[in-house]
Amino acid sequence: MERSMWFLDQKDMPTKWYNVQADLPEPLPPLLHPGTKEPTRLPPPLFPEAVNEQEFSKERWIEIPEEVQAAYRTYRPTVLHRAYRLEKYLDTPAKIFYKYEGTSQAGSHKPNTAIAQAYYNKKEGVKRLATETGAGQWGSALALGCAFFGLECKVYMVRVSYNQKPYRRILMETWGAKVVPSPSNDTEVGRRFLKENPDHPGSLGIAISEACEDAFAHEDTKYSIGSVVNHVLLHQTIIGEETIKQMEMADAYPDIIVGCVGGGSNFAGQFLPWIRDKFSGKKKNMRIICVEPTAAPSLTKGPYTWDYGDIAGLAPIVKMYTLGHTFIPSPIHAGGLRYHGMAPIISHLYKLGWIEAVAVPQIPTFEAGVIFARTEGIISAPEPCHDLRVAIDEALKCKEEGVSKAILINHSGHGHFDLSAYDAYLSGKLVDYAYPEAAVKKALKDLPEVSEAYK
Amino acid sequence: MERSMWFLDQKDMPTKWYNVQADLPEPLPPLLHPGTKEPTRLPPPLFPEAVNEQEFSKERWIEIPEEVQAAYRTYRPTVLHRAYRLEKYLDTPAKIFYKYEGTSQAGSHKPNTAIAQAYYNKKEGVKRLATETGAGQWGSALALGCAFFGLECKVYMVRVSYNQKPYRRILMETWGAKVVPSPSNDTEVGRRFLKENPDHPGSLGIAISEACEDAFAHEDTKYSIGSVVNHVLLHQTIIGEETIKQMEMADAYPDIIVGCVGGGSNFAGQFLPWIRDKFSGKKKNMRIICVEPTAAPSLTKGPYTWDYGDIAGLAPIVKMYTLGHTFIPSPIHAGGLRYHGMAPIISHLYKLGWIEAVAVPQIPTFEAGVIFARTEGIISAPEPCHDLRVAIDEALKCKEEGVSKAILINHSGHGHFDLSAYDAYLSGKLVDYAYPEAAVKKALKDLPEVSEAYK
Repeated sequence: MERSMWFLDQKDMPTKWYNVQADLPEPLPPLLHPGTKEPTRLPPPLFPEAVNEQEFSKERWIEIPEEVQAAYRTYRPTVLHRAYRLEKYLDTPAKIFYKYEGTSQAGSHKPNTAIAQAYYNKKEGVKRLATETGAGQWGSALALGCAFFGLECKVYMVRVSYNQKPYRRILMETWGAKVVPSPSNDTEVGRRFLKENPDHPGSLGIAISEACEDAFAHEDTKYSIGSVVNHVLLHQTIIGEETIKQMEMADAYPDIIVGCVGGGSNFAGQFLPWIRDKFSGKKKNMRIICVEPTAAPSLTKGPYTWDYGDIAGLAPIVKMYTLGHTFIPSPIHAGGLRYHGMAPIISHLYKLGWIEAVAVPQIPTFEAGVIFARTEGIISAPEPCHDLRVAIDEALKCKEEGVSKAILINHSGHGHFDLSAYDAYLSGKLVDYAYPEAAVKKALKDLPEVSEAYK
Repeated sequence: MERSMWFLDQKDMPTKWYNVQADLPEPLPPLLHPGTKEPTRLPPPLFPEAVNEQEFSKERWIEIPEEVQAAYRTYRPTVLHRAYRLEKYLDTPAKIFYKYEGTSQAGSHKPNTAIAQAYYNKKEGVKRLATETGAGQWGSALALGCAFFGLECKVYMVRVSYNQKPYRRILMETWGAKVVPSPSNDTEVGRRFLKENPDHPGSLGIAISEACEDAFAHEDTKYSIGSVVNHVLLHQTIIGEETIKQMEMADAYPDIIVGCVGGGSNFAGQFLPWIRDKFSGKKKNMRIICVEPTAAPSLTKGPYTWDYGDIAGLAPIVKMYTLGHTFIPSPIHAGGLRYHGMAPIISHLYKLGWIEAVAVPQIPTFEAGVIFARTEGIISAPEPCHDLRVAIDEALKCKEEGVSKAILINHSGHGHFDLSAYDAYLSGKLVDYAYPEAAVKKALKDLPEVSEAYK
C-alpha cells in the first residue's frame, strides 16, 4: 500500500508558533509612522496589545493559547498529500508532496490568523472587528473567527466584488458577519466617494480606509488584517510546523518548497519553519521558491525600498519589494496575489538571498490547475495554481535530468468559488497580462520620502 | 487536550465493502423487468458484469480492488469529528460526533461509488460512461471518477439546473466531462422533447432516458447511477466501516445514528455496517434514524409496494416505499432528497422494523445548518442540514432528560454550491412545503401492476 495522505494526530499538533525574528541573520528594518516617518508600533487604536507585541517580538517560540488551539482543532492538523497521480501523469522521478489548507471551513489558510486575532481581541475586551475584503477570502475567514469567539464582524467588501461574488458575501453572512459594499454610507470616507459617484465600483484602498475609520470611530471596535504584517506570518507558521512533522512521517525531506506569494503570509507560514535548516546549515541547498503573478511581480521586478503598506497611504511605511502603493494590478483571477508589495519578512529574506522568486502569467497556471484537477481531483484556487505551475515545471526538470527530488507544494486552498475562472480558461477566453512596466514606473514616483537614516 | 478529530491511518483503511445482503433477516424481494415484470438482473447493456454481480451477491465482504483503494486514498479515510462547540452551544450532555464526507474532491460521499463504477467499467473495456444529473452532485462525482480512470464522461444535466447552476457544470468540465443541457439534440428522446418545446426546462426523468439511450446506442458506452441500487449502497459502506474504527479510537459507541435519505445510499453507507450489532443483539437499542424532507416523505408517508425506480418508467421495478414514480417533489433546496422512492435495502429494513424515519420541513433544517456553521464552522449542503436538525433535536431531548447519549451524524458534504439557499433562509425568503397529499395520491394511481406472486 502506498500511503498518499499523512494525518497528524491532534495530540501532536504544534502548540507554538515559530517567530523567525529570533533567528534572522540581520534584524528587520523598523516600521515607520505614515505621518512622522519615525519608527512606530502598529496603531494601538486598531490592534490589540498582544498582537502588537507579537509584531516586534524576538522570542523564538510563541505559545498558541489553548482557546486558539481548540478552535484550530475544528479543522487542524490539515493533511499532507503525496501526488502520486500527478507524478505518474508527468512521468517524473520527482516525489511531489502537497500540504493542503483547503479543508478549513473557509477553504483556505486564512482562518489560522483570523482565529488567533479574534481570540486576542476578545481577550482584551474588544466587542467588534472591522475589516476590508476584496474577493472575500479574508473577510470570510475573519467572519468565521469572530463566530468562534462571539465577536461582531463588519466587513467592507469592494462593491464590484460584492455584486459579482454573492457567494462569498453569503458565506460571511452565514457566519454572522455584517457585510456592506464599499464605498458605503457607513463612513465619512465612503460617503465622500459615493457623493462623487453613487455607483462607485470601490477599491481595496477605499475599503481599508472605511474599515480603519470604523475602528477609530468605535470604542469597542478594532481592525484586523489578513496578510503582510509579521504577526500574521507568525500565526501561519502552524502550517510549516505541522508539515515538518508530516514529512518526517513520510520519511522525506523537501529539496524544493514552492508557494505563491501575494502579501506572502501563506507561503511564509510554510517555509519559515523550514528555513531554520538553511540558517543552521543542516540543509543549505534547499530551494525555497516564491511564485508571483506576472501582473504583480514585486519580488522579481520591484525595488527594495520604503513604501506604504496600503494603497491609501494610511498604513505604516515598511521596507519591502514594491511596485508602488498606487499601482493597481491587472484583474487576474488570483485576487489574493494582486498586492503591490511583499511582506517585510519575505522581502528581507529575499534581499539577503535565502529564498528565490519567479513570476508566471495566468494562463499557464490554469493549465497546471486543470492537470492537477484531472490527476489529484482537487479544484485549486487560482492562487495555488501558481505553485502548481512551478512545481510541475520543476518536476519536468527532474525528468529531463533524471533526478528524484522531493518537491513540497504549499497548497493554500480550494477554488470552489473561482469556477468562473476555470470556465474562462476552458473556453479559451482567459487572457494574459504582460508585466505592466509603464504603470509600475509611474507608481514608483509616488513612494514616500523617508529620512536618510532609514535608507 | 480534547481531541475533536479522529484520523484513520491509511494502512487501517478498510479494504472490503460490507454487503448487508449476507446478513438480512429476510432476503430482499427481486427486481422485476419493466417490460415482462419477471425477475431480472440490471440491464447488461447498461451495467458492467462486476457491478451486476455485486447487485445480487450474498457474500458478506467484497474486496475493494487495489486500484479503487488507491483512488480512495486521494481523499480517504475521511475525518470523524466531535462537535464540542455545538454541544456547548446547545448546553447538552449529549456527545455529538459527525463523520464528514465533504473533504472529497467533489465535496460529498458520491465519489465512493463513482470511482468504483468507473474502475469496473474500465476493467471491462468500456470507454465511455453516460449519466444524468439534476443539480450536478452526482454528475460531478462521476466526472471525477472517469478522470481517475481515463474514461470519457457524458453528463445529461437537467436544463433548468444547467442554466441556474453553472458552477457544477464547470466542475464537471474541469474534470474533463462533456456536459449537455437535457433535453438535448444528442438523443431521440431529447430531440422529441425539444421539438415540442425548444425551451423545455428538462427533468430528471428525461435526463435518465437520454443517458440510457446514449448507453444503448453506443457499443463502447455504459450507464452509471448514483444511488438507490444495491451496489451503490455497497460501495458507500466504506463510510461506516471507517467510522466504526474511528468511534473506537474516540472510545465511544453511538446510541443514535442520524442521516438524511434521498435515494438512501449515503446514509446506508454509514448505518449498514453498524446494523450488524443490532442483528447480533450486541447493541439492540441503538437507534438508526432516517431523515427525509416533508416534501418527499417516502418512508413516513408512502406505501411499501412495487414501483419503477425512475420517473420515466424505464428502470426495473423494485419493492420500496414510494410516493409513485410520477410524483414530482416540490423544489426544495435539498435536491439530493427529491426522490419519489427509497433504496430497496432501506425500505426492507424499515418494513422489518430495524430502522426509524422522520420527516422535516426545510426551514428548520437551515436553522440547524446556520447553528452548525456558527459553532463548528462548516457550511453544510442542504441535505445534511436535515441530519443536523434531528441531531440537534435529539441532543436537546438529552438535555431535558439529563442523559448523555452519543449521537453520530452522517454528514454527506459541504454546501459551497448551495449558498443561494442560505441567502434565501437568512433573508427570510425561504418557504416550506406541506406534505403534498393530493399529488401523492394521484401519483400512486400510476403504480405498475405486478403478478400476484410478488405481492
